[in-house]
Amino acid sequence: MTRQVNVGLVGVGRIGRLHAEHLAYRIPQARLLAVSDVVVEAAQKAAADLGVPIATRDHRAIMDNQDIEAVVICSSTDTHSLMIEEAAAAGKHIFCEKPIDFDLARIDRALAAVDKAGVKLQIGFNRRFDPNFRRVRELVASGKLGQPHILRITSRDPQPPPIAYVKVSGGIFLDMTIHDFDMARYLIGSEVEEIYVAAGVMVDPEIGKAGDVDTAVITLRFENGAIGTIDNSRRAVYGYDQRVEVFGSGGAVSVDNNYPNTAVVSDGQRIQRDLPFNFFLDRYVESYIVEMKEFIECVVKGTPPPVTGIDGRIPVVMGYAAGKSYAEHRPVRLSEIA
Amino acid sequence: MTRQVNVGLVGVGRIGRLHAEHLAYRIPQARLLAVSDVVVEAAQKAAADLGVPIATRDHRAIMDNQDIEAVVICSSTDTHSLMIEEAAAAGKHIFCEKPIDFDLARIDRALAAVDKAGVKLQIGFNRRFDPNFRRVRELVASGKLGQPHILRITSRDPQPPPIAYVKVSGGIFLDMTIHDFDMARYLIGSEVEEIYVAAGVMVDPEIGKAGDVDTAVITLRFENGAIGTIDNSRRAVYGYDQRVEVFGSGGAVSVDNNYPNTAVVSDGQRIQRDLPFNFFLDRYVESYIVEMKEFIECVVKGTPPPVTGIDGRIPVVMGYAAGKSYAEHRPVRLSEIA
Amino acid sequence: MTRQVNVGLVGVGRIGRLHAEHLAYRIPQARLLAVSDVVVEAAQKAAADLGVPIATRDHRAIMDNQDIEAVVICSSTDTHSLMIEEAAAAGKHIFCEKPIDFDLARIDRALAAVDKAGVKLQIGFNRRFDPNFRRVRELVASGKLGQPHILRITSRDPQPPPIAYVKVSGGIFLDMTIHDFDMARYLIGSEVEEIYVAAGVMVDPEIGKAGDVDTAVITLRFENGAIGTIDNSRRAVYGYDQRVEVFGSGGAVSVDNNYPNTAVVSDGQRIQRDLPFNFFLDRYVESYIVEMKEFIECVVKGTPPPVTGIDGRIPVVMGYAAGKSYAEHRPVRLSEIA
Amino acid sequence: MTRQVNVGLVGVGRIGRLHAEHLAYRIPQARLLAVSDVVVEAAQKAAADLGVPIATRDHRAIMDNQDIEAVVICSSTDTHSLMIEEAAAAGKHIFCEKPIDFDLARIDRALAAVDKAGVKLQIGFNRRFDPNFRRVRELVASGKLGQPHILRITSRDPQPPPIAYVKVSGGIFLDMTIHDFDMARYLIGSEVEEIYVAAGVMVDPEIGKAGDVDTAVITLRFENGAIGTIDNSRRAVYGYDQRVEVFGSGGAVSVDNNYPNTAVVSDGQRIQRDLPFNFFLDRYVESYIVEMKEFIECVVKGTPPPVTGIDGRIPVVMGYAAGKSYAEHRPVRLSEIA
Repeated sequence: MTRQVNVGLVGVGRIGRLHAEHLAYRIPQARLLAVSDVVVEAAQKAAADLGVPIATRDHRAIMDNQDIEAVVICSSTDTHSLMIEEAAAAGKHIFCEKPIDFDLARIDRALAAVDKAGVKLQIGFNRRFDPNFRRVRELVASGKLGQPHILRITSRDPQPPPIAYVKVSGGIFLDMTIHDFDMARYLIGSEVEEIYVAAGVMVDPEIGKAGDVDTAVITLRFENGAIGTIDNSRRAVYGYDQRVEVFGSGGAVSVDNNYPNTAVVSDGQRIQRDLPFNFFLDRYVESYIVEMKEFIECVVKGTPPPVTGIDGRIPVVMGYAAGKSYAEHRPVRLSEIA
Repeated sequence: MTRQVNVGLVGVGRIGRLHAEHLAYRIPQARLLAVSDVVVEAAQKAAADLGVPIATRDHRAIMDNQDIEAVVICSSTDTHSLMIEEAAAAGKHIFCEKPIDFDLARIDRALAAVDKAGVKLQIGFNRRFDPNFRRVRELVASGKLGQPHILRITSRDPQPPPIAYVKVSGGIFLDMTIHDFDMARYLIGSEVEEIYVAAGVMVDPEIGKAGDVDTAVITLRFENGAIGTIDNSRRAVYGYDQRVEVFGSGGAVSVDNNYPNTAVVSDGQRIQRDLPFNFFLDRYVESYIVEMKEFIECVVKGTPPPVTGIDGRIPVVMGYAAGKSYAEHRPVRLSEIA
Repeated sequence: MTRQVNVGLVGVGRIGRLHAEHLAYRIPQARLLAVSDVVVEAAQKAAADLGVPIATRDHRAIMDNQDIEAVVICSSTDTHSLMIEEAAAAGKHIFCEKPIDFDLARIDRALAAVDKAGVKLQIGFNRRFDPNFRRVRELVASGKLGQPHILRITSRDPQPPPIAYVKVSGGIFLDMTIHDFDMARYLIGSEVEEIYVAAGVMVDPEIGKAGDVDTAVITLRFENGAIGTIDNSRRAVYGYDQRVEVFGSGGAVSVDNNYPNTAVVSDGQRIQRDLPFNFFLDRYVESYIVEMKEFIECVVKGTPPPVTGIDGRIPVVMGYAAGKSYAEHRPVRLSEIA
Repeated sequence: MTRQVNVGLVGVGRIGRLHAEHLAYRIPQARLLAVSDVVVEAAQKAAADLGVPIATRDHRAIMDNQDIEAVVICSSTDTHSLMIEEAAAAGKHIFCEKPIDFDLARIDRALAAVDKAGVKLQIGFNRRFDPNFRRVRELVASGKLGQPHILRITSRDPQPPPIAYVKVSGGIFLDMTIHDFDMARYLIGSEVEEIYVAAGVMVDPEIGKAGDVDTAVITLRFENGAIGTIDNSRRAVYGYDQRVEVFGSGGAVSVDNNYPNTAVVSDGQRIQRDLPFNFFLDRYVESYIVEMKEFIECVVKGTPPPVTGIDGRIPVVMGYAAGKSYAEHRPVRLSEIA
């Protein structure tokens, strides 16, 4: 067996707890040495359940621990960039949940700190590790589809978040579409130059009152000439709808949703199957394990992380460009933002 | 049996010949009395094959024939509007292939002639009669999908037309997308207010030299708030790709392509099926029969035609708006055109 | 154009009328010259509708007509073998609906008459001409599936026939399974040696009182070593269910049912599509046209018919073997019957 | 949190190791206290990897450990029945891998010991816990499919086991079909009365030389009147093929295989997707976790185990009936065996 990486994890909310379980049980090369949370009881419970030696309220206990080689940051978004700077200063490799921040200057400062420290930084765009989307990327990268011409992403949530969250979320483009922006760059393997947004409030007028939209169709122009379209809705009554299609000069590939079972029932009225998974943790369960495995692996092997700090920055820029396009009712170039 | 409608047909090219066969064999209520073509041998051959009493070079022989109640116009596009005016003046009901014309003034003159004469005019947007798209329309109209939010149309041809044709076709938006514009209005049941186009030359540089594009993603805003997206390509290597999806507050419906068979083969490499139909006449075979049946039926019953002259005009306006959006790199309202 | 074949058709019931329409409209090489029916009004109506010159009560008027080259026999089953003998004696090529007869001696006499006259005889096993099953046969014959090991046929009717019909039908194995027996031989390309039947009355006790079963699972052993299984039901509430699968050393192929449209609807409860075609004439529409086209073609070209008299005889033998297996509760060899 | 069950596990081969991981990591209510293996190094390695306190060569150390409440038996088949007897004598609840034994007398002795001790015994028929098959069972049990009429099981392995294994496996019916026999009883919820087998050697003549067959079609008659058919092959080139269909008076349900991803690729030749999972541990991964969860749960709650000792015995009887049917070329009643 190869050496184990000692890991500290900051923030054991829903995603943090999930990462902690994976580090404890599913990734032999990782050893979860410490967990911290501002709600110290949460940290203590996670530690007890998962056999983690150290539980603490203060994340500094992790940053200062010389035995810890890598830090997984799952605290609230507003703390991400500072945590990155602290971890980099402590010489630790970093996995950070998305987004790095909503402030580009703070993102840049964090990335500069990482660069200076020479540590690894991986951003938690988990969908890149989903077996369906991976297969699409693999096919595009292999050249089997020829030159990519059109990208279609359908990304619809089962229900909108609470209005209180909508107000602080940064808006649909920074909260929800940010994943699709990452997916677009990942799948096509080229940068987006320009974004045009048509959007509206169709699901819930309260979302409109909160200054946001809930339904959007987004057109992307890529540097390599391809054109992309993303359609978003905050509420698909049939569940979590996550599909993509890439069409190229040599063919096309599309991926469907994942389902809890394959049963097809025929009765006197119809032929039917059960709805797809409704919850993102069920839909993307495998992707969370794989992204963490690959993070630990790149620490062990000294290879570059599969999702870099720049990969964390660009979708934020795209989110701002999308917001500006919607506000100004015109196509907006990314170069207008950054 | 109800009474038969005597029909004259002008132009026995590919589509004209198909309509002639359907009138002769598949529609008991129609009696094809005369066919005309500027290539008189084509008219004569069609008449001989199909048992049509009259074959002529001069379409006036049809317009002047008192026994003929309805005219089917399948001659070249530049003759459509004049033929409509002549037929209207002769008091005959009219089925005319799309487009009516590329000149809005000529379209308006033709529609005015039809109005004045009080005859019926049906435009040949056959896809409305396709069983797949009909089912989608039926579901939207039934309210079972709730309020429509997002429309997605994928419409890709198996190969581009000859460059010589591209030059006179009116461009991709008036030649190819025009069908999708009709489909968009038909499926959503609301008018489009504004169009934005992202497009490029990806299939064949010769198309670009001819002043056209071959790949496009088009965003539509409907009056009822819905947003649509159409993606077009002049070449899908896997065949004719014609799919739509409507997403609404109550659910979604999507239709797939049609296939020559349902065989699924599993070997040591993959699970596969044969490609979808490659040729539009195979794909849309049933729609051509049904549209003509419904035309004859509306003549017999005195009901309004299912695709009106206005239905023929608006997609041309949309085509111009699309062209203008592409040229000016901005969203264009339909009210800027007409 | 090649020469036309003058055809006479005996019996214009449901299937006879369908064949008459195809001969009149869909097969340019055929000319339907005469129709007969014991209900002469039916013959007269068909002739009027389809432009057939001769309508008669007496089928002898067809057999004696020197202009008629081929006869299509769609009269009641009990007349088939005599009609074949008369037509053969008159030197006419013969298309005869299945079954030839339920009496093997009468079948043999009819086949002998055909042989002696040197005319062609094609039996109406239309499913061989269905695009789905043809594709399966083509794959098996191509060797792409390797050596066939297992054949699975699912063949379920949407509802049982009237009890009055059940009593004279010859039983499920000669009335319904006979098509599957033909399909089994056709798809595998080898003869069946032995049949075992497990069956019961599950759909309607009246069928049991009439001495028949309504549900059956039939095991077939082929001469080439393959094993087949057929499952039959007289009532599938979801419609006409007609699927096959061939599994071989190199892979497998399966075909699904045909559907009226491809629409898939997702709502808050389920993902669903419409039921498959419910009526055999909708499901097998194309097969009826193709089988008649190929019959006319083999008359024109002098090639052997695609479904021979022996192909008509063997499934009857299989039907008797199946009945004997059920009665005696043991596997029965075909050699015990013929 | 509810109380934890202390578990000892005997035999850490492939399946034993898998169960050990699930007990250690995935089932909070279980605490894996000890593992044993005749290869003590295997036990020690598992203990070290999974944090198990006790590793031993001698399974008696588990049986005698007063802290251990439940035993999981994954040792070789020939030891199962004795292990059950020992565990029962020690008053421990028992999970035992299938089959209990190939000797019905030994099975009966083991079951009697369990009965006498009043402990729980669950047999490892994991497929009952697969989400696909569970959904089928749920539908049948709910009555939504009406009365079950026909059951179809397709069960084909990706490749045959080594010939050395074939010789000691008990033959295909006791080694491979035993799972399908269990599935048949489970899905239909009725006992099988009679079995008929048609089988042959098609995959590998060496299997025939070893006295076994490699391809089989098996007909089952259930007490409730339903008829089942199982088709088995030792080699499907496209992977592990595990599908079932239940057809009833109210409708039908079928389940497809599981796939590593949902990607569908269209190129100029075909539409294709990747092959299904090839390895049973990938295909049935979830079922192994769920069966162990439910075992632990029934210990905690004192409820009956979901797969009983009788459920372990009957498929062995069915395996013998199948072998006898093949040998004697006739349908065999289960009552002839037991």
